[in-house]
Amino acid sequence: MRIVTSVAAMQRLAMEWNRRGVRAGLVPTMGYLHEGHMSLLRKARERVGNRGVVVASIYVNPTQFAPTEDLAHYPRDLARDKKLCRDAGVDVVFVPGDHQMYPSRHGAEFSTYVVEETLSRGMEGVSRPTHFRGVATAVAKLFNIIRPEVAVFGAKDFQQAAIVKRMARDLNFPVKIIVAPTVREADGLALSSRNRYLSAEERRQAVALWQGIQLARQTVRTSTRPIPASRLNSELKWLIETRPAARVDYIEFFDPETLQPVAKVQRGAQIALAVFVGKTRLIDNARI
Amino acid sequence: MRIVTSVAAMQRLAMEWNRRGVRAGLVPTMGYLHEGHMSLLRKARERVGNRGVVVASIYVNPTQFAPTEDLAHYPRDLARDKKLCRDAGVDVVFVPGDHQMYPSRHGAEFSTYVVEETLSRGMEGVSRPTHFRGVATAVAKLFNIIRPEVAVFGAKDFQQAAIVKRMARDLNFPVKIIVAPTVREADGLALSSRNRYLSAEERRQAVALWQGIQLARQTVRTSTRPIPASRLNSELKWLIETRPAARVDYIEFFDPETLQPVAKVQRGAQIALAVFVGKTRLIDNARI
Repeated sequence: MRIVTSVAAMQRLAMEWNRRGVRAGLVPTMGYLHEGHMSLLRKARERVGNRGVVVASIYVNPTQFAPTEDLAHYPRDLARDKKLCRDAGVDVVFVPGDHQMYPSRHGAEFSTYVVEETLSRGMEGVSRPTHFRGVATAVAKLFNIIRPEVAVFGAKDFQQAAIVKRMARDLNFPVKIIVAPTVREADGLALSSRNRYLSAEERRQAVALWQGIQLARQTVRTSTRPIPASRLNSELKWLIETRPAARVDYIEFFDPETLQPVAKVQRGAQIALAVFVGKTRLIDNARI
Repeated sequence: MRIVTSVAAMQRLAMEWNRRGVRAGLVPTMGYLHEGHMSLLRKARERVGNRGVVVASIYVNPTQFAPTEDLAHYPRDLARDKKLCRDAGVDVVFVPGDHQMYPSRHGAEFSTYVVEETLSRGMEGVSRPTHFRGVATAVAKLFNIIRPEVAVFGAKDFQQAAIVKRMARDLNFPVKIIVAPTVREADGLALSSRNRYLSAEERRQAVALWQGIQLARQTVRTSTRPIPASRLNSELKWLIETRPAARVDYIEFFDPETLQPVAKVQRGAQIALAVFVGKTRLIDNARI
């Protein structure tokens, strides 16, 4: 397994793969890897085969964090990440520093962003206004640096995956975007590097997100008619906030293609929610 | 010479070149080609050699025109353009339709833009607020569709060339950006497809831009000390507007790297100006 830290070296390697017809599969991560990431790496391997190369990028991208957010405290453990990547059969780990990704020469500071203007508006885009601009910019950079044939994203970040797909289509990146299912703990909590922020008690209460999703599903599936989104929303909020540490940021029901909110919820709609558990903001989503 | 009208076909061709190690040089144009474009095509050929391929794209990109601008009337003559390309030894002319470049499926409209936020602010960015967003987006698309090793832009659009260079650097496009000198008529008027809008009398008066540039050069070069930009600006405006059809939109003196205005003008500064001659808006620029 090769560790690459410079953009130029990574790009040379990618160009060589292009010339030799080697298929590359990319899994962009912010590190602190867990079983969810492992499932993305397996998916990438599946797509490029044993003669292809799997690249894991590990980069905590500053442009997708607001100044008030957890950039400085985002969990990092590169030694462990490398070991997990090696065990997962990753060919190249790309770990650029900030000076590599956002070089800042005096008078020529970084100034170009990729902005998706429709799908980014709701949900995470409301709570985190510059988040998706940062994500789209970093992903566009990684696509140009690594030139993968496929890139695999997790379904846990549903809106992000939709935006990356839209970006790839709109800007004609020749990259197939794969979205792999969310991996969950035994009690249903979606795996996330941020789960490590939770105290033992908060961890127990964090199952509220998954229980909310299940309540929504059950309510919709056992009803003979569509359920008003506002009613479902109130019920879920009530259920989730019976946990003393939990505070709902948003719960939304929407069309999984357009991300447009639906007034009445039926099978096939998507639910997404963000909940603070203590100081930790968790997200989850599922098809109803 | 091959004419390609679909994005998918162009991208397949580009991928094949990548695999075969064929170097591609791109000259993005809006068609209605003139000797300025021919010089860009020659430069592209120089860079990729006879075993490389030169691609001319011809596309009047709607996203870089404001609703009030001349999109509908922008001059077009595809038959003549093709002949000029063939004579210039172009290998592929890429002529996509709007439905190819900005496909619009209901509920999934085009929504991703590339935005440069520093160099775009002044000059053309003031007069044409969404212009460079459109340019950067279209150029990013062309880079992803054609995957050139080099792309050649004309120095006449100085700010555009600076923004494209910045975009390529910031988003890590593996494309070398070449800027080729402005080609001029015998009296100094910079070649532009928009010159065809000029009446015979306006055409005579249009030389005012070049005369203004020469006055600025002469004033600065014969002075022992830097000249206040505001004074030079007034003098040039006066000179240019002695022509009855000419009205100055802006005249700016700036650092050619950062595009930041300079208060005092000396050798090495850049001048750029935009002047309406009748209803036609012309631009020009030069190193002082």
